[in-house]
Amino acid sequence: MDSTTCLWWIRRHRTEEIHTLSIDYHQRHRIELESAAQVAERAGVRTHQQIEIDLAQIGGSPLTDESRHLPTAREHRQAATVVPFRNLLFVTAAAACAEVLGISDIYISPVRDDYRSYRDCRREFYDSLEETLRLGAGEQRDIQLHTPFVDKWKTEVLALGLELGVPYELTHTCYTGRRPACGECDACAERIAAFRACETADPLKYEIDIDWTETGAHSG
Amino acid sequence: MDSTTCLWWIRRHRTEEIHTLSIDYHQRHRIELESAAQVAERAGVRTHQQIEIDLAQIGGSPLTDESRHLPTAREHRQAATVVPFRNLLFVTAAAACAEVLGISDIYISPVRDDYRSYRDCRREFYDSLEETLRLGAGEQRDIQLHTPFVDKWKTEVLALGLELGVPYELTHTCYTGRRPACGECDACAERIAAFRACETADPLKYEIDIDWTETGAHSG
Repeated sequence: MDSTTCLWWIRRHRTEEIHTLSIDYHQRHRIELESAAQVAERAGVRTHQQIEIDLAQIGGSPLTDESRHLPTAREHRQAATVVPFRNLLFVTAAAACAEVLGISDIYISPVRDDYRSYRDCRREFYDSLEETLRLGAGEQRDIQLHTPFVDKWKTEVLALGLELGVPYELTHTCYTGRRPACGECDACAERIAAFRACETADPLKYEIDIDWTETGAHSG
Repeated sequence: MDSTTCLWWIRRHRTEEIHTLSIDYHQRHRIELESAAQVAERAGVRTHQQIEIDLAQIGGSPLTDESRHLPTAREHRQAATVVPFRNLLFVTAAAACAEVLGISDIYISPVRDDYRSYRDCRREFYDSLEETLRLGAGEQRDIQLHTPFVDKWKTEVLALGLELGVPYELTHTCYTGRRPACGECDACAERIAAFRACETADPLKYEIDIDWTETGAHSG
């Protein structure tokens, strides 16, 4: 949902060609890869690439290790879902693809709500990574690592996306990878709270009944 | 050759258990993975792990794309062999494995000769990456990214390795991935020059005849 909103935001603010990258990291919710391809097609990007980096080989998270318990939002244990250095690997892979394509602008869309559980969603981390990328590139280049939503709450990002006409019915969020979505994992809970705060019904189907009129203003 | 020397150097200087990691990045010289496993066994490490991150999906280098011409040392085009952000990906994967194992000390062994062609072999890059890893780790941890040979010429590293009894007959260096080694790629040329400078015959077999007594002091 955040990545798709970011893509629509880029289409509004930049005129250059856009190339999108999805990573099959053997996540429990690999179903999101199909959604990403549909979103990229709808957005009319120049190329959409999917690469495989199997993080189940490394493990350490219920998102890549099916034998580990995936907590529900009620357990308040989102930090247990951290995939070690996932965003660093993702951005590095994107930077490598960008180098081959001759591109210097890279986008990733952490949001403010992510800070609590994920240290690799803070701008401080991306500032350091941007510098690391500049120092490690094959030739000296002014690589820009953009995180347009890093200071925005998910609710604000959704409000922006609704304004931009983002096709949220194509997106996938649920950590379990089920369709209809479970409605109970941390990812579903945050998504549902954001739609409620925007007083809009989510076009996604859920396994459980959800009352979209329930008050649930949520900004982290 | 540098990694193996580094491993013997660690065995001399540290008392903790050692875990080694090899990455099958679909390099032309995948044969080095067999060597790495033999080296790890000889060193008596606690665990040796091999993971696959297929960088041929990204391409951009003759080391991962067989359709690209692999230059010989005589062409003076080593920079053309850069695999985009390879060392950043390697260290990130190692840091992820280290996080799962609860380890804070990570070693990689760029040498001074590598600077000329590879920007991601400079300590400036590793300083920045060390900070990025600390900021991106699941929990705040004092991760140390060690590069003990970064200021040493390959000849000095070899001299140290000969003193430490490194089994160079087990190592693999040649970029082509052939055995016997080609003797003509940049990696072979640097290795041969280092052995000559140390006035020692390399125990590896080469496809071409090499006169180990030829003067070839080489320090970058």
